[in-house]
Amino acid sequence: LPYLGKMKIILVKIGGFVLDQPALYSTFLEQFSSIPASKILVHGGGRRATTLTQQLGLEPKIVDGRRITDDATLEIVTMVYAGLINKNITADLQANGCNAMGLSGADGDLIHAHKRIHPSIDFGWAGDIDKINTAFLEDLLLKGNTPVIAPITHDGKGQLFNTNADTIASAVAAALCLHHDVTLLYCFEHKGLLGNPGNPEEVIPVIKSSKVQSLIDKGIISGGMIPKVHNIQASLQQGVNRVILCAATDVKQILENADYATGTIFTL
Amino acid sequence: LPYLGKMKIILVKIGGFVLDQPALYSTFLEQFSSIPASKILVHGGGRRATTLTQQLGLEPKIVDGRRITDDATLEIVTMVYAGLINKNITADLQANGCNAMGLSGADGDLIHAHKRIHPSIDFGWAGDIDKINTAFLEDLLLKGNTPVIAPITHDGKGQLFNTNADTIASAVAAALCLHHDVTLLYCFEHKGLLGNPGNPEEVIPVIKSSKVQSLIDKGIISGGMIPKVHNIQASLQQGVNRVILCAATDVKQILENADYATGTIFTL
Repeated sequence: LPYLGKMKIILVKIGGFVLDQPALYSTFLEQFSSIPASKILVHGGGRRATTLTQQLGLEPKIVDGRRITDDATLEIVTMVYAGLINKNITADLQANGCNAMGLSGADGDLIHAHKRIHPSIDFGWAGDIDKINTAFLEDLLLKGNTPVIAPITHDGKGQLFNTNADTIASAVAAALCLHHDVTLLYCFEHKGLLGNPGNPEEVIPVIKSSKVQSLIDKGIISGGMIPKVHNIQASLQQGVNRVILCAATDVKQILENADYATGTIFTL
Repeated sequence: LPYLGKMKIILVKIGGFVLDQPALYSTFLEQFSSIPASKILVHGGGRRATTLTQQLGLEPKIVDGRRITDDATLEIVTMVYAGLINKNITADLQANGCNAMGLSGADGDLIHAHKRIHPSIDFGWAGDIDKINTAFLEDLLLKGNTPVIAPITHDGKGQLFNTNADTIASAVAAALCLHHDVTLLYCFEHKGLLGNPGNPEEVIPVIKSSKVQSLIDKGIISGGMIPKVHNIQASLQQGVNRVILCAATDVKQILENADYATGTIFTL
């Protein structure tokens, strides 16, 4: 019989900001490795996919501000996300004593997706998530492994997809919280949600999900932050126990101190 | 307590010849997926790493006929082997109903290696194998997963290495045969070891490991076949139960028919 107990799971999402800065990256890895609970890392891309695209003389295709994943782009993100970045993070976590295991959504059938359907735009090989294989993740966590998930998914018919890493983090947290206590930390370039976008020290410590729309209306949450808070709202609505937006280098402080002296905690 | 029984394990190594030809590749995947026993796939590179190196305007560095893995080459092989090829094979096996899991040597601390030591040549980030994490592989096999191993290893201190795929296949088979019945199939461009290099139909059905040197002396085994047969000899000496050199599209026939109508079986 499989293990039916409730685990405490910390799921951390990091993006390009941390990956592109060696000192931050190194501090983050140390902090992440020292988390005593079961943990999962979801990573995004960083500048490297763009650099490689340019080196190969290819033009990024952007429609309505959104990147189109054509055949060449899918190959590049598969190489950079699931290869270069994923394996380097895995090796670096191993060096920190964390038994990491790098995974794409195809590995162990972890994340099923389908090609994005849109009335007017063909996003190419952009994948929207159907299903997370939580049994596989639970099994790895129980063995003491730390899954490190690259933002590549598959359809079970041999097609890989490019899938947003924030969305993967949200979907994995939502799937696991059905049976476990899940804390989701979205790490980004600030210490939390800023009450005044001009002042990086003015962090809103706690915000109710229902208040998010008014901050969007006032322009306090704007641009790339909008899809991020929508992912956070979706996670909470699906039962994720707590969602925190914070700096990658504050992960340790946030998890060790119940007073949440830094970061923004989102509540339902 | 871990499972202590003896498993029947089929370990198949494929190289560039199969990967670069869609029809062969597709036939191979079908045959491999249909193997009822526990199975492991080790894959090499194919032309893609060379193509990408050229597209990036880099010169492959060859010293004494051997490739030097400099920083840029390590990044390329990590991207192509552990990313592009590994994830496409994994997704394609999933499409064939085989619950594949792509792995580099860093994942789950699967393959520890060290930088190759040589009295006169610095091979760069070429890794020689120290240790295989067989407990991790056994666990995956018992869960019904099929490990798909890319030829990338690590040193446990954050350094990745480029390691020959034939050598990985041989080392993994040797480590597993301490507790299991292991059949190792090396797939390549011919149906087996050719008694007459000019005639691809003249396959030697069985050869004793001790007779290999005389075939090298006679020039019947030459070039890139020499390190391959040395890996085969090493596997047998370390106790691998049977080692077969064959075409990737003959895997099914060989495993289903005890008469070994095709392929070359090597014996001690």
